[in-house]
Amino acid sequence: MQTLLTLSYDGTNYAGWQRQQNAIAVQQKLEEALTALFHQPITTKASSRTDAGVHALGQRAAFFADNMPIPLDKLPQVINGYLPSDISVIKADSVSDCFNPRFDAMYKTYKYQIYNAPTPNPLLSRYSIYEPRPMDIEAMKKAAAMFIGRHDFAAFQATGSSAKTTVREIYDCTITSQPSDLITLTITGSGFLYNMVRIIAGTLLYTGLGKIPTDAIPNIINSRNRACAGKTMPPQGLILQEVGYTTYVLLE
Amino acid sequence: MQTLLTLSYDGTNYAGWQRQQNAIAVQQKLEEALTALFHQPITTKASSRTDAGVHALGQRAAFFADNMPIPLDKLPQVINGYLPSDISVIKADSVSDCFNPRFDAMYKTYKYQIYNAPTPNPLLSRYSIYEPRPMDIEAMKKAAAMFIGRHDFAAFQATGSSAKTTVREIYDCTITSQPSDLITLTITGSGFLYNMVRIIAGTLLYTGLGKIPTDAIPNIINSRNRACAGKTMPPQGLILQEVGYTTYVLLE
Repeated sequence: MQTLLTLSYDGTNYAGWQRQQNAIAVQQKLEEALTALFHQPITTKASSRTDAGVHALGQRAAFFADNMPIPLDKLPQVINGYLPSDISVIKADSVSDCFNPRFDAMYKTYKYQIYNAPTPNPLLSRYSIYEPRPMDIEAMKKAAAMFIGRHDFAAFQATGSSAKTTVREIYDCTITSQPSDLITLTITGSGFLYNMVRIIAGTLLYTGLGKIPTDAIPNIINSRNRACAGKTMPPQGLILQEVGYTTYVLLE
Repeated sequence: MQTLLTLSYDGTNYAGWQRQQNAIAVQQKLEEALTALFHQPITTKASSRTDAGVHALGQRAAFFADNMPIPLDKLPQVINGYLPSDISVIKADSVSDCFNPRFDAMYKTYKYQIYNAPTPNPLLSRYSIYEPRPMDIEAMKKAAAMFIGRHDFAAFQATGSSAKTTVREIYDCTITSQPSDLITLTITGSGFLYNMVRIIAGTLLYTGLGKIPTDAIPNIINSRNRACAGKTMPPQGLILQEVGYTTYVLLE
């Protein structure tokens, strides 16, 4: 039987989602907890391999186990007893054995947070990047809307990536500034290329600073040239907010 | 000449505001930064001696210096260059030499944050305490209002304290739950006894859990007995939000 977990984590102290040799990853901590709880070696598959320092409020990870020793609705609380306080399982659902948390994702939503004030706010510094220069929020809002739709996002992936296709569909892309000092990019898409959200965030930052005119966005997309887009923003501002599936993958 | 700084800090890694022998305090970090910047030994006086682990968004600290090498409005950015990223000076004002940041305070506002959901949120765990049990928010709101006014708060101070008088005036005391999982106590008063906000927060927590009836609050206040009030809540949920002064103490 396969189980799908929804989990959140503070990525500050982790080398990202994916298990690796010489650093501690979120996947390792989760698999250690599940292995201890189920008394059998458990491996997990996530919807997104978040990078080092990136946070999650709605990451998804699926695993197979021979048995389920406790009711599913109690599972999150029990697993959390085996996890450090910077990782928390929120929800557990039973899913079909054919379900794949990565390939069956219908959409993913990420947030990127920029703290914009004359001086930094230490209570937000783990979960945002700090930008003291005045930003044109209206320009950023207009520019954000131009990412919506089905485009070739080759200009918005890390150089050296080898995705089969660089075409992705963005369903929604908005900028909010509530509370006023915290500028948040919320972007929902069918999927994202490597570093795509962080490069879009960097491009919108440049728009807000007047370094890239709003109406240049379509040309940057059409260029398919990474050098035309903005910088790759640091990981700590990025939060994987939600991964969406069609309801039929959840078994009753 | 005396200068008044407004500062914020993440208290997680500090032994509180007050400088001490065997642990690192916020005051020490600030004084080291000022001493380096002004090329003379600088000591500071704060409005509140926040405890270990308590955060601040609007702490105030004053210091005397012989000269002011940079314009006051540039001072925060420059001092921040000397400070670690979990401490940030927001504002600098020139004040009369007679001004005392502690005794001239007209009011102080604290927040206490409780994250109330079936599972923890790692992105809030540094700045809130976690309570999974369902809470009666309406009962907490009613109970909070009963603290407003001039009362003898002897029941709400740490045992062994030696304040001259335990009478304090609470100007405002409210509970909000926006976003819905984050319950925030906001309390403004003329001043607070040692641990007073954390004991009031613990008493309101018990009200929310149904352990203390709402209408028992006046009796608990009248008892002047620490044992009748709720528990002292942990420091990480507490944030010193604001310290208010009459405008005349700020020199033009």
